[in-house]
Amino acid sequence: MGKTMQNKLVQYFSELTALSSEERQDIENSMMINKFPKGTYLLKEGQIARDSYFVIKGLVREFILWDGDEKTTNFFSENQWIISLDTLASTPPSILNRVCVEDCVLVIGNEKMSKELFKKHPRFEAISRMVMEKTFAGQQQQMTSFFTESPEQRYLKLLKLRPDIFQRVPQYQIASYIGVKPESLSRIRKRIAKQ
Amino acid sequence: MGKTMQNKLVQYFSELTALSSEERQDIENSMMINKFPKGTYLLKEGQIARDSYFVIKGLVREFILWDGDEKTTNFFSENQWIISLDTLASTPPSILNRVCVEDCVLVIGNEKMSKELFKKHPRFEAISRMVMEKTFAGQQQQMTSFFTESPEQRYLKLLKLRPDIFQRVPQYQIASYIGVKPESLSRIRKRIAKQ
Repeated sequence: MGKTMQNKLVQYFSELTALSSEERQDIENSMMINKFPKGTYLLKEGQIARDSYFVIKGLVREFILWDGDEKTTNFFSENQWIISLDTLASTPPSILNRVCVEDCVLVIGNEKMSKELFKKHPRFEAISRMVMEKTFAGQQQQMTSFFTESPEQRYLKLLKLRPDIFQRVPQYQIASYIGVKPESLSRIRKRIAKQ
Repeated sequence: MGKTMQNKLVQYFSELTALSSEERQDIENSMMINKFPKGTYLLKEGQIARDSYFVIKGLVREFILWDGDEKTTNFFSENQWIISLDTLASTPPSILNRVCVEDCVLVIGNEKMSKELFKKHPRFEAISRMVMEKTFAGQQQQMTSFFTESPEQRYLKLLKLRPDIFQRVPQYQIASYIGVKPESLSRIRKRIAKQ
């Protein structure tokens, strides 16, 4: 895997905290990067979600099967973390599905790998905490958005914050993410186009 | 503040990882515990949420004002963390309200206090990461529950996992938490009582 790809995660960490060149090197060396072809399921309903991922390239869609329909709960793309914590919560198997919408390049992380890294570099505990906080903060926002925003507001927000998504996934997945049927999404788009 | 109260947080941490007696002592010494009378707002819509809290005693309700109605998004009680990460996400002020439903005793934490503790005891970074992960895992579950469970299922789950809540808050708050009008909650309760 190319140097540039590995640098993406190092760069992400560097924005959280200053890294020594030795630390940068160790991250690069210990990093497990894999390619996942389009259509690969990283997680299927009924499994235990153990692995977390950092998206170097590609797009992963998260959805729940609900009353026979797919309810899209998240899109993960470049520089985002897909964090799995099933092993911590005393939970039944996951009800989430996570599928690669495009060919993906992902860094894989899990409890075991983290522990080894933490043992060698205790400071990575702090970095890991920061990643967790940042991702958690994003999720808190997403959760309140579900409670308070109309589908139209959610559409406009997605368009503003993540315009690339509209070129990368089919319309029906956008519809299920903002919480409407595909027909209603067409109406929302027409209404917005007129304004 | 009594020793027993301080021990509650130490005990919580001990369940995550083994603590030396020096570490226990330092947690107890550095802990900032405050009493908050019933009705106190820890956070109001429009403010920046900077402080996190650990509930030693009491109950805090979180809600969003939405179309003139209160939508209850969380109840926090003994041994739970109320985590605020507004300063991390590049967010507008919070839309959440957090109010003490009972007289509360809370441990207060924030970025500045954590940093001081981390400097003295780098290992607390790890503990903080574990707290974050555990709370995050709980929130992930809650989020999928909102997507997939009916109000009746949410009612039964709350009754099973947190039966005390029903004695501690008025019915209309339970209703808004499970996502129905108070009238519908009465119907749900009657239906369940018949079974």
